Amino acid sequence: MTEIDLNSDLGEGFGPWRMGDDAAMLAVVTSGNIACGFHAGDPSGILRTLQEAAHRNVAVGAHVGYPDLVGFGRRRMEPSSDELTADCLYQIGALQGLARAAGTVVRYVKPHGALYNTMAHDMRQADAVIAAIRATDPGLALLALSGAPVVARARDAGLRVICEAFADRAYNPDGTLVGREHPGAVLHDPADISARMVRLVRDGVVTALDGTPVRLEAQSICVHGDSPAAVAIATRLRADLLAAGIRPGAFAA
Amino acid sequence: MTEIDLNSDLGEGFGPWRMGDDAAMLAVVTSGNIACGFHAGDPSGILRTLQEAAHRNVAVGAHVGYPDLVGFGRRRMEPSSDELTADCLYQIGALQGLARAAGTVVRYVKPHGALYNTMAHDMRQADAVIAAIRATDPGLALLALSGAPVVARARDAGLRVICEAFADRAYNPDGTLVGREHPGAVLHDPADISARMVRLVRDGVVTALDGTPVRLEAQSICVHGDSPAAVAIATRLRADLLAAGIRPGAFAA
Amino acid sequence: MTEIDLNSDLGEGFGPWRMGDDAAMLAVVTSGNIACGFHAGDPSGILRTLQEAAHRNVAVGAHVGYPDLVGFGRRRMEPSSDELTADCLYQIGALQGLARAAGTVVRYVKPHGALYNTMAHDMRQADAVIAAIRATDPGLALLALSGAPVVARARDAGLRVICEAFADRAYNPDGTLVGREHPGAVLHDPADISARMVRLVRDGVVTALDGTPVRLEAQSICVHGDSPAAVAIATRLRADLLAAGIRPGAFAA
Amino acid sequence: MTEIDLNSDLGEGFGPWRMGDDAAMLAVVTSGNIACGFHAGDPSGILRTLQEAAHRNVAVGAHVGYPDLVGFGRRRMEPSSDELTADCLYQIGALQGLARAAGTVVRYVKPHGALYNTMAHDMRQADAVIAAIRATDPGLALLALSGAPVVARARDAGLRVICEAFADRAYNPDGTLVGREHPGAVLHDPADISARMVRLVRDGVVTALDGTPVRLEAQSICVHGDSPAAVAIATRLRADLLAAGIRPGAFAA
Repeated sequence: MTEIDLNSDLGEGFGPWRMGDDAAMLAVVTSGNIACGFHAGDPSGILRTLQEAAHRNVAVGAHVGYPDLVGFGRRRMEPSSDELTADCLYQIGALQGLARAAGTVVRYVKPHGALYNTMAHDMRQADAVIAAIRATDPGLALLALSGAPVVARARDAGLRVICEAFADRAYNPDGTLVGREHPGAVLHDPADISARMVRLVRDGVVTALDGTPVRLEAQSICVHGDSPAAVAIATRLRADLLAAGIRPGAFAA
Repeated sequence: MTEIDLNSDLGEGFGPWRMGDDAAMLAVVTSGNIACGFHAGDPSGILRTLQEAAHRNVAVGAHVGYPDLVGFGRRRMEPSSDELTADCLYQIGALQGLARAAGTVVRYVKPHGALYNTMAHDMRQADAVIAAIRATDPGLALLALSGAPVVARARDAGLRVICEAFADRAYNPDGTLVGREHPGAVLHDPADISARMVRLVRDGVVTALDGTPVRLEAQSICVHGDSPAAVAIATRLRADLLAAGIRPGAFAA
Repeated sequence: MTEIDLNSDLGEGFGPWRMGDDAAMLAVVTSGNIACGFHAGDPSGILRTLQEAAHRNVAVGAHVGYPDLVGFGRRRMEPSSDELTADCLYQIGALQGLARAAGTVVRYVKPHGALYNTMAHDMRQADAVIAAIRATDPGLALLALSGAPVVARARDAGLRVICEAFADRAYNPDGTLVGREHPGAVLHDPADISARMVRLVRDGVVTALDGTPVRLEAQSICVHGDSPAAVAIATRLRADLLAAGIRPGAFAA
Repeated sequence: MTEIDLNSDLGEGFGPWRMGDDAAMLAVVTSGNIACGFHAGDPSGILRTLQEAAHRNVAVGAHVGYPDLVGFGRRRMEPSSDELTADCLYQIGALQGLARAAGTVVRYVKPHGALYNTMAHDMRQADAVIAAIRATDPGLALLALSGAPVVARARDAGLRVICEAFADRAYNPDGTLVGREHPGAVLHDPADISARMVRLVRDGVVTALDGTPVRLEAQSICVHGDSPAAVAIATRLRADLLAAGIRPGAFAA
């Protein structure tokens, strides 16, 4: 039976503030990207999320970000390589400490927001994150943007890289994501999204915005849970995958 | 040959700001209490300190504190037990992550400032910190205030507790520290300080402020490095201990 | 026609995180306690709230708090008097700067959370906040807990003090609030809450938890908007006050 | 008698950490750029600096920065225009609040570090800062890099702009600063520095790195106080200016 990983961002509250419906998403996904305190997440909230993930047998990864809480890690920064490596070591270690107490283990790293986008193409920042992963545990996988330069870079460095597609995003004919500023960049129809992802898992192909088929490497699909509509899309996608004989399963189980 | 541990707070800069002379203190002490980012310390600065400690064969411990950077962790706080446990898990884990990259291992935990003083007597906060240590690694020692209630509490919970004396502080006849608000609470004469500590290590006795001898359990002596005078005192103490046939050695080597 | 002020906490989001329904509450209240960035609120979010308040002719006050974002200012702290005064000066000034750009003016100060509760009874902290208000503008009113020692303290210092009652809280026979840990401390029935507050405005009396009538000075009523139920209560209260011939009006218009 | 303003960054400690010798610099400069809490400075430390500046009759300006304490505001960020405007409104207002309590008044704005450098050339960020100044008080001056595009931009927007030269920096023949990565970019010889600045004030000309004379508009000279050597340079410069018949005087007195 074909398997595919489903991942989502979790634990992104802070103090009294909640974000997304973690409980709902833990029933859908097989891997949870857990905030580490820099762009979101405080220790006791992260710990609760890890405990729930452990209870639901959802694999957990370190969702490391820039030190920009008010900007939610969505604003590009230019830390030095030493700073970025140390920031990642700190966040991964902190999550490992909390995960241990929650009875689970950090399996992978998925950078967040502006760091994710920047290191996809900026090899200096990519190298700094890769160095942190390697120094922590070369067995940790990196969850990265399918088709981006960081994929080969991390593989050349000896890391296991899991490529992900975005369920609710349109693609260009060259396999890159359509920028959010363009019309049609974000998909909203659950049936359409499901059909696209089933095809991607079966055939390795997604239809680009201009209608051409694009080959895409994807061992994981990223789904969102930051609104009721997003949860509904994710839930539908999981059901449709199962109906198509595709089993959601963590890549790092 | 008699041995005694010498410990000091290290890595307490933040961003562009320095504090103390870490390089000088690494030549004196056998154990370094490394800031973990909550009361002081940023990831890249902490990493550099850990690398230097590894290079000097100084054992390292997690100097966990309240989340109060501007107050340097010196203001009492009342986190819930869950918050305090999670804050400690996060800080210890973060330091472990950085220590691994620096080629060393976190051997113990020494709470900082207001947390240190509060948990010495407040068993609710003590229990929360003890729970974090046990969940992280029951083999981690706790470095605590000699004679305080926390010592028995942590030992009853199964932890190894190392009691420390303060080289430059006066003691009451009951073995408690003379409060800083009293005259004579802080000692400044290097020869006097050294003689007191040599006697403590040899005979287990320190002279109280009123002249009476006090029995004190101490497997470690805390020395400071936050001023040139403090470094001079620590350096003199180390030399005088050696001259008295007492070898400085890490309790957690 | 009798008037009463209705106040609520507003602008308590942070970065990507929202809290409460500010738009709904701006249609209900006559005074908005605006977060100043220490316990909640970031500059651009605060500015938007101020612009909406100005548009709705809602008077604004500085909702100053302890520097404890992750704890939402709800954990007691022990800043020195100098620190607390400076923290308040900073927060009030920052809000004044944003208010000016929004076309409105800060009219009063209402401390938040643990600071509000602490300074109600702790005259050292009360004096530090009073000193900040006086140094900023002795014409700024202080919105304070009816019946608490801080009321007389601030009046003796020359400040205008507005006493507030809490719409959804039960009172003891001595006029103090029933602690949240006791059953019945928080009221939930909109009709009951409205009737109590109408009586308070008309007769200056509220029924205590044991049924005895209590005289209470109240020029303002605090209502909450942190849940749909809370918004419904506040909306009902406003309608019932109007129906009883009591006009909601800002004390500081 | 010719006058020239001398400005320096002040109040850049944070919590227990000090930076520079504010007392020494207050005896040298006529304008102090006071940290506002985002890149450095906490409320009580800022207040003390403002009190000392008031006592020494040194004019004060708001040294606004990016919200990046650990990076000391030296790392370029990309806030949205709304965020940047609100961040500046908040910081200027906070400083005004503290200045009022210290018996002084904020006279000007000088952005710090990466914000200063970015807005010198990036008109989007420049416009966001200019909007904040105009909304606060169009009478506030902007202290800016001589020769940079921001100067005309701010003047076109109606602001008073004061151009500054850097005492210890080399210039290119086109009037731009030699980048710090080039040899000779930073000057160290007090006599040389003084002679250059005296010539600049007298003749409006500074000698570029290649020996050619460059015309430079400068109503203020920036001096540093972050090391004993820097303080010595600043002190010498002041003395040499006076000996040359040039009186240090605040542009905003």
